[in-house]
Amino acid sequence: MAEPLNIALAGLGTVGSGVVRLIETNADLIARRARRPIRIAAVSARDRGKDRGVDLSPYLWLDDPAESATRPEIDVVVEMVGGSDGPALTLARKSIASGKSFVTANKAMIAHHGLELAAAAEAAGVALKFEAAVAGGIPVIKGLSEGAAANAIKRVYGILNGTCNYILSTMEDTGRDFADVLADAQRLGYAEADPTFDVEGIDAAHKLAILAGIAFGTRLRFDAVETSGITGVLAADISQARALGYVIRLIGTAEIDHGPVGGGEERGLFQRVRPHLVPCDHPLASVDGATNAVVAEGNFMGRLLFQGAGAGDGPTASAVVADLIDIARGEKGAAFSMPSAELEALEPANSGHRMGRAYLRFIVPDRPGVLAEITAAMRDAGVSIESFIQKGRGEAGGEVIVALVTHEGPEAAVSEALRILEGTDSVARPPLVMQIIGA
Amino acid sequence: MAEPLNIALAGLGTVGSGVVRLIETNADLIARRARRPIRIAAVSARDRGKDRGVDLSPYLWLDDPAESATRPEIDVVVEMVGGSDGPALTLARKSIASGKSFVTANKAMIAHHGLELAAAAEAAGVALKFEAAVAGGIPVIKGLSEGAAANAIKRVYGILNGTCNYILSTMEDTGRDFADVLADAQRLGYAEADPTFDVEGIDAAHKLAILAGIAFGTRLRFDAVETSGITGVLAADISQARALGYVIRLIGTAEIDHGPVGGGEERGLFQRVRPHLVPCDHPLASVDGATNAVVAEGNFMGRLLFQGAGAGDGPTASAVVADLIDIARGEKGAAFSMPSAELEALEPANSGHRMGRAYLRFIVPDRPGVLAEITAAMRDAGVSIESFIQKGRGEAGGEVIVALVTHEGPEAAVSEALRILEGTDSVARPPLVMQIIGA
Repeated sequence: MAEPLNIALAGLGTVGSGVVRLIETNADLIARRARRPIRIAAVSARDRGKDRGVDLSPYLWLDDPAESATRPEIDVVVEMVGGSDGPALTLARKSIASGKSFVTANKAMIAHHGLELAAAAEAAGVALKFEAAVAGGIPVIKGLSEGAAANAIKRVYGILNGTCNYILSTMEDTGRDFADVLADAQRLGYAEADPTFDVEGIDAAHKLAILAGIAFGTRLRFDAVETSGITGVLAADISQARALGYVIRLIGTAEIDHGPVGGGEERGLFQRVRPHLVPCDHPLASVDGATNAVVAEGNFMGRLLFQGAGAGDGPTASAVVADLIDIARGEKGAAFSMPSAELEALEPANSGHRMGRAYLRFIVPDRPGVLAEITAAMRDAGVSIESFIQKGRGEAGGEVIVALVTHEGPEAAVSEALRILEGTDSVARPPLVMQIIGA
Repeated sequence: MAEPLNIALAGLGTVGSGVVRLIETNADLIARRARRPIRIAAVSARDRGKDRGVDLSPYLWLDDPAESATRPEIDVVVEMVGGSDGPALTLARKSIASGKSFVTANKAMIAHHGLELAAAAEAAGVALKFEAAVAGGIPVIKGLSEGAAANAIKRVYGILNGTCNYILSTMEDTGRDFADVLADAQRLGYAEADPTFDVEGIDAAHKLAILAGIAFGTRLRFDAVETSGITGVLAADISQARALGYVIRLIGTAEIDHGPVGGGEERGLFQRVRPHLVPCDHPLASVDGATNAVVAEGNFMGRLLFQGAGAGDGPTASAVVADLIDIARGEKGAAFSMPSAELEALEPANSGHRMGRAYLRFIVPDRPGVLAEITAAMRDAGVSIESFIQKGRGEAGGEVIVALVTHEGPEAAVSEALRILEGTDSVARPPLVMQIIGA
């Protein structure tokens, strides 16, 4: 048997402890598949005394994780500390500069600093891998960068945040409202005490930016992801959508946008995270609970779907150790499927010319003339209405919920209609706009 | 840019022409991803004159494909000739022996001779790759052997034959009978003129044996796959199943079997291809038409699903070229996820102790006493009946269709009941037995 691959684990939270447990449980299998053992040579975390449910006494404890970047016996540093900057980024830079391969589950850091770290890894001749950063246990980074490598990918989209999907599918099953289900999710450990990154779509945006870079061979532009979350989705929206034959899912979509039809050469990078209406017979509609799913459309392979556990210690550890096995096997593939200097710099697309159907929902005062004002705005902006639903009274305060579905048309027209309505008495609160996904 | 990877294509049918088209269309992208161009250095096929919709004049034509195994400028031979033995196998052996890497879409050859070829490839220090052999454009071999490599895989199952799935889902949508839909499928090109390999489950069994070897790290045992096809499935079975909340799919399942509960150390390899009842809310139930899907269950990652186009020139070419990109990148991973000498030799499992629910359907004479005879046989064999459905008259000849669903119990009891009934007047024709998949 060849020499072991010596790894240092930095961060021993849920994921870190999961990695220890996996490497211990599946040690023989890993050695057969990797053709050498994977050996935990050092561990570090903030609090040495904390009970993590795994026995850490066999492993060298480092008080300072940065030490793992410099110890000569370490081959790979595994970062599970979290945070886009701070100690995680310092450790990444230092490890790579010291000639260590670097594996991380840190989507925020890769979304913000992935290009810099990839270039550094290439210069140092080491691997930078982050399968666990996107969609937990689903090998989607490998699937896109290797499995689908022969294809020009036209579009990649999916359900990238388990917390939001759990909340939306629970709202759907129970008819309860967002705040109520979120509180439950927090109690059950499906949502963080501070759920902002999840429910505002930021976590999904991190993952989408990473997927887009790999799928299209473009430089990461997390800053250019149009992001909105699920905090504005009402139980009423879910029941409306259901009545129309749809479910609501937080979908991240990325596409190379070719500009308006006949509009010339301008290519742009379209990236959006937003709740969408998904037809009930679409594969993403049956993705419930904390499950994640990613669809990629290639010019030869057609539509490919990956689905699995998007979070949790076991699935995330599975992805981390898959990266380690690749490194043990000597595979140092480029972090973003091609050398970072080859990645194309694309400007964000203007989404106004994108064609599609949309669901618009307003909370309006319960008085005559409101519907006339909304429909007039639609007409003036050139938005054609496919169906119009006025619900009964809202929860309180003499307000009613009004929802409509548009015919296929440019997004710019919908934006224009909303601009006309902005600040009028008819629309007291910001409306909710959700695109409708085709079958 | 590095030196091109020079490939020779043997066989220019649908898949071979698709590979030519893909390599031409996506040449720049492939070179960026592979870090070197992939160059078609030679082509060969039976009939030089045939119009294949691609211009072959830029490529060296070899009258004898075997020549590609010996020409020094060729790095990789790509075999798309087909057939488990004969010219394809000769070419494989010769190419590998001559130090060429070998890529194939040939599931029959890999199912029968994969171990021999893998050992030869290891000895020669070349790659043997066959992503296109299983599930067309879905990178499931990579997904299992690399993406899921950190896991002990407990079970792998899925829809592995697009022709059968097309036929079953069309029967479901139209209420028509097997022979009728098959004839249509042949006319539309979804089924071969001789459909035996597809409809009898042999093609799915080839793929299952390959997946099982990779998933479990066991030596391939195609000979040990319990195989039955879909020719016995009636329109009446599909409507019965639907009434019970199920659809019928041809499912291949492989599992490491640990013997009867408390039954000691004996581990066996369970492999079966058979039509199954799948609950309507199971992810495999919504897999329609020629789509394929594979589920793998790992001890850390949980349940992982891959879904996509299972056949066709584009998807299959996508898988072939993904293998070529891996080789161009210098990745020579073991064919079955670990060196062939490490693969465990497991005997076929005895399926009798397997617990589950089953759907049994009989065609019986329309006379008193038949139901009593069937239920007595069930009682005597210890099979507990959950629901019993007697349909109206059959198509002809005074026969009726009788179906029942058993409670959870050992498969051996069902087999014993059928043995008791065999040759009695009550069961004139062989019954259909389908296992019911849990949610």
